[in-house]
Amino acid sequence: MGEFELIQRYFTRPTPNAVLGVGDDCAVLQLGAGMQMAISTDMLVAGRHFFPDVDPRTLGHKALAVNLSDLAACGARPMAFTLALALPTANATWLQAFSEGLLTLADAHACELIGGDTTQGPLNICITVFGEVPAGPPGGTGTQAILRSGARMGHDIYVSGTLGDARLALEALQGRLQLPADVLATARQRLEQPTPRVALGLALRGIASAAADVSDGLLGDLGHILQRSGVGATLDTSVATQLIAACANSTGASSQFCLNIRPQTALQCVLSGGDDYELVFTAPASLRAAVQAASSASDTPVTRIGQIDSALGLRLVDGHGAPVANTYASFDHFEQQMCSTPN
Amino acid sequence: MGEFELIQRYFTRPTPNAVLGVGDDCAVLQLGAGMQMAISTDMLVAGRHFFPDVDPRTLGHKALAVNLSDLAACGARPMAFTLALALPTANATWLQAFSEGLLTLADAHACELIGGDTTQGPLNICITVFGEVPAGPPGGTGTQAILRSGARMGHDIYVSGTLGDARLALEALQGRLQLPADVLATARQRLEQPTPRVALGLALRGIASAAADVSDGLLGDLGHILQRSGVGATLDTSVATQLIAACANSTGASSQFCLNIRPQTALQCVLSGGDDYELVFTAPASLRAAVQAASSASDTPVTRIGQIDSALGLRLVDGHGAPVANTYASFDHFEQQMCSTPN
Repeated sequence: MGEFELIQRYFTRPTPNAVLGVGDDCAVLQLGAGMQMAISTDMLVAGRHFFPDVDPRTLGHKALAVNLSDLAACGARPMAFTLALALPTANATWLQAFSEGLLTLADAHACELIGGDTTQGPLNICITVFGEVPAGPPGGTGTQAILRSGARMGHDIYVSGTLGDARLALEALQGRLQLPADVLATARQRLEQPTPRVALGLALRGIASAAADVSDGLLGDLGHILQRSGVGATLDTSVATQLIAACANSTGASSQFCLNIRPQTALQCVLSGGDDYELVFTAPASLRAAVQAASSASDTPVTRIGQIDSALGLRLVDGHGAPVANTYASFDHFEQQMCSTPN
Repeated sequence: MGEFELIQRYFTRPTPNAVLGVGDDCAVLQLGAGMQMAISTDMLVAGRHFFPDVDPRTLGHKALAVNLSDLAACGARPMAFTLALALPTANATWLQAFSEGLLTLADAHACELIGGDTTQGPLNICITVFGEVPAGPPGGTGTQAILRSGARMGHDIYVSGTLGDARLALEALQGRLQLPADVLATARQRLEQPTPRVALGLALRGIASAAADVSDGLLGDLGHILQRSGVGATLDTSVATQLIAACANSTGASSQFCLNIRPQTALQCVLSGGDDYELVFTAPASLRAAVQAASSASDTPVTRIGQIDSALGLRLVDGHGAPVANTYASFDHFEQQMCSTPN
């Protein structure tokens, strides 16, 4: 199978919203009046971001999901994406499953595949995604996109959905932790097929003062918000430990197992696990009802986990407000290997 | 050096034209009134698109150049790009040179680096580039971008600059051909630091009926135009053989050497060499003066090499109009290995 046949067979589809889709030197997109384009790109490498033998269908899903998650964090409506793909071989079975996983998620978000590149090489998936956000009123940031820089003293801090499952699954799949089958199944689903919080991001536009998606871990990604906003924060770790979905939904023996996970392990997964693709965001305390309404409208649970302080730095406290030592580092693709779980 | 420090040190710069640049979940671009966004993405893999030990400065140049070339083929004005980079190690010397080569070309085209991704993995460079083109009048293609689909019977076929040098250099660097030092130097410059024909592409808007950039080889890329336009063509190979710059500019012994390259070898390089990043384009015969004016205005030579026919297929002829057998295949990243030069 040649390069052009491969593109034709697996990656060429109607693009009713694009002016020009796959097959020319460029794709061409037209924005609505008063709209701006939000752009994000993510590169996934075998052995680094996924196991080389991962189900290609879930890989296709995840490759787009992590990009849609960036649009969600900005409150942008997905429009289109490009796919650059390096493949060791052109394997029809693999490509069929990969493209199905990819395009099923794309369809769910009306996000059109408008172009790309295909080449021979070590497996590498680079997606660039395009979304639409309204321009901002004069005098502000210039955009209605939700930025990382808008958190202010006294604002509440929230996370969407659940955290820590992806890391829990990774620990189990790498043999550092044993999980009951049902807990592993739930956690693995979260690791391999994360849900980009696009609807929540859109609903939070005009409500959230800052947002980021949780890809490197809650502490790290909240840290980006704090840094860009020039503020600090206090996080309630007693709330955070309730956030592992695989445990929240467990029953019977699994529930007992979850109770027995050492709190340190649970916290490590929740605070620095990464790969969750939830949103961490801030909003003025006066907008709590609006945040709840956005949560309901988008059918996405949100949990209030802390507050923005004027003092720089990030402080962890327990349910009684007593300090908790912060020994949880975030994932860095160059500095750190995946750290092993304390247990 | 960590991922964030690496991005900060080598790839974070002012982005005066972007609403939002590096450092948030998304970048945000604002288009001018009545403008559309042209988008292209290319992935470069070590060992496939460049030698692993290539000078990182020229690699940085080329990685962006091949993308700017796609904008040029559409007649789009470069605005911005994203860079996704997988690196085996974070080597400061390499990164310094790579980013200098990349950003020097970016500056020359006022093309801002607005975001990206950096990860550990086999060397892979994925750039997505964004340009601006005016929307089209109602009833047409919807865009003023130059498409591949507009070639019509009787239109002239042109190429910009010179062709075949990149392939000539590759043949020499892979040991299949010996070149005099000055010929190799010129050819190698063209292989490693191609010149994207951005100014010509802009000047051809409204004049060229179709265009593509020559990345896979003249025959292959002209073939894309013919296919999308539903037409055929006749190419004059006697003109084509004059197009190797390294030979056109050679003197003395080198000139003699060039005269002695077997015509078959020269034609192979010119017709199917690839990696030239010139433009192949068509225009009505009534616009020959306009094409020459665009060539002069953009300081880019163009050569008329043939004509569009209504009969499908591509016919090669010599200087007297006699048929020349077409044994020149184009480069395909999956089906073919780089074919060896007949000699």
